Amino acid sequence: MKINGVPYRTIWPSADRRSVTIIDQTRLPHEFVTRSLANLDQAAHAIKAMQVRGAPLIGATAAYGLALAMNADPSDAGLKTAYDRLLATRPTAVNLRWALDAMQTGLTPLPPAQRALTAWQRAAALCDEDVAINEAIGRHGKSLIAQAWERKGCQGSVNILTHCNAGWLATVDWGTALAPIYAAHDGGIPVHVWVDETRPRNQGASLTAWELGQHGVPHTVIADNAGGHYMQHHRVDLAIVGTDRTTASGDVCNKIGTYLKALAAFDNKVPFYVALPSPTIDWTISDGLVQIPIEERAGDEVSHIPGLAEDGRITRVQVTPKGSAVANPAFDVTPARLVTALVTERGICPATPEGLRALFPEKAP
Amino acid sequence: MKINGVPYRTIWPSADRRSVTIIDQTRLPHEFVTRSLANLDQAAHAIKAMQVRGAPLIGATAAYGLALAMNADPSDAGLKTAYDRLLATRPTAVNLRWALDAMQTGLTPLPPAQRALTAWQRAAALCDEDVAINEAIGRHGKSLIAQAWERKGCQGSVNILTHCNAGWLATVDWGTALAPIYAAHDGGIPVHVWVDETRPRNQGASLTAWELGQHGVPHTVIADNAGGHYMQHHRVDLAIVGTDRTTASGDVCNKIGTYLKALAAFDNKVPFYVALPSPTIDWTISDGLVQIPIEERAGDEVSHIPGLAEDGRITRVQVTPKGSAVANPAFDVTPARLVTALVTERGICPATPEGLRALFPEKAP
Repeated sequence: MKINGVPYRTIWPSADRRSVTIIDQTRLPHEFVTRSLANLDQAAHAIKAMQVRGAPLIGATAAYGLALAMNADPSDAGLKTAYDRLLATRPTAVNLRWALDAMQTGLTPLPPAQRALTAWQRAAALCDEDVAINEAIGRHGKSLIAQAWERKGCQGSVNILTHCNAGWLATVDWGTALAPIYAAHDGGIPVHVWVDETRPRNQGASLTAWELGQHGVPHTVIADNAGGHYMQHHRVDLAIVGTDRTTASGDVCNKIGTYLKALAAFDNKVPFYVALPSPTIDWTISDGLVQIPIEERAGDEVSHIPGLAEDGRITRVQVTPKGSAVANPAFDVTPARLVTALVTERGICPATPEGLRALFPEKAP
Repeated sequence: MKINGVPYRTIWPSADRRSVTIIDQTRLPHEFVTRSLANLDQAAHAIKAMQVRGAPLIGATAAYGLALAMNADPSDAGLKTAYDRLLATRPTAVNLRWALDAMQTGLTPLPPAQRALTAWQRAAALCDEDVAINEAIGRHGKSLIAQAWERKGCQGSVNILTHCNAGWLATVDWGTALAPIYAAHDGGIPVHVWVDETRPRNQGASLTAWELGQHGVPHTVIADNAGGHYMQHHRVDLAIVGTDRTTASGDVCNKIGTYLKALAAFDNKVPFYVALPSPTIDWTISDGLVQIPIEERAGDEVSHIPGLAEDGRITRVQVTPKGSAVANPAFDVTPARLVTALVTERGICPATPEGLRALFPEKAP
């Protein structure tokens, strides 16, 4: 997608295969800063410090981290050290392990002298695959936006609500939930996005708003509390969100607060779509509420809010009283009954076991 | 209720009837600052700048604002100017008009020379009535908490979710939604309150958490996004909120986001109670969604968040990108079908026209 008119990916290698460049997302939306990662240490730090975030982008960064490590030490010991080091950066990120395993499987059989070149090639291929998946999600999801546009008699614009950041900043390009929005916008359908700020980490206000703005997509940031009201007043034509983990029955585990928006969409007959690359489907579970453990994150994400101070510095302020306890569950589970449809790289399906299996017959038990 | 062990009201007149003192709620929870209001301008500013907020306290402040105005100019013109000036400060607040009308009705027939003294007496009486109403709401609502406590077999504590601040800071004392909680806590029922932070103005994180903490009530601040998740996992025994305006049919207009919590409560069979003094009932309307206009407040309440900086100053940080639009509807309407019961000073009733009319037969059309 574009930043200030120039197309970017979120991660890209140098031509000489000595470094890889990322966007430091901890500085967004207030500063656009890129960082060149030249070794394993810097790649591990970028993941751990959340300069890169979003499951697909974490996987891509880890893959390039292994490639950087192979430049320095392509021995078996070097490979193991790099794998362990990168895996430890975000122990709960499933994509991280998946990407590292895919890299390791390809590199281990090779003689050390061939590992660096292959690692760079495989990391690039992994990124291209992510882009292809998201582009396909965008193509399929665009048809849903086109339908909403036709239901409105092609008047005004299609108002789309989204939660958190499932945009290109979370992936290598396009994003998941935002891919259909970019595809519709680029294809000439007028869209307007209601951006949930997404407390406590404000990924909507800071990342989704920034990337939509840079690409020229009309949008309005709202408090997470406001979406239901806009649905009641027919000012939301559809909602679309991403997912961190999807059960075989279509339950969706996504950023905390997604469930509340799904309830409001259901109550107001607003279509509620979930966009997902198929690797986020966990075919082994079918009851999201019971089977998905919810990460409890640090309380200071609730009690303290970072932002741009009036003096231009990026700082944070405390909003709670000293002595008040805080709690911070990071995700919630939206039952499949509230999801209108799932949008995958293979197409659109109902959020049901049958719907998912029809698109992914090879996963049938 | 208590601050640091000392009982307070939120507003109190000076003995010489030249001024009235308020707690500057814009400085909470980080600083406890009182302000003396000595004239109409200062009273209007206190309401408009939300140094005082909450429908009953706004009404009380407006009443004292009229009394201050009568000190300076008790003529018919002075009365009309003060009435209009105060009414314009918060157009959605039905209590504001009610309090001003009550004052005006009592003052208009009097000769100007008698108006000031009468105004101070009537403002004081209006405050005492508010305290009596809230104490009664607390007594009735406490029975609902006691029932929840018995349903749990008197084990653990009763977990109560609330949204925004309908506490004693929003009234003259006790509060509306929090009155039953204080009554239960003071009466020995163990309670724990989930405090929605209540974006965009964070009245939950800043005011509800502060007043509960000062009075010694166990509580935990959560993002507005988290309440549905806790209800899904049986960690909320009941929800209780206030209301700015209630229709004759039991629809409830309260702080933005209330509707989302009511949906989640309904979906999880969690009792959802609304506490209200009867002056907030608008007997002339019966369809809240259609008939209640929703105030749109300044966008910088969403884009900028105030709090305590690390250097100890109270400042604000911007969380949205430059150039992103923001929208800020301040209230939403929760349909009566989602409300388990209304808690009034006369007792508890279903959120139906019949329920309300049974408690207030004099309002029958």
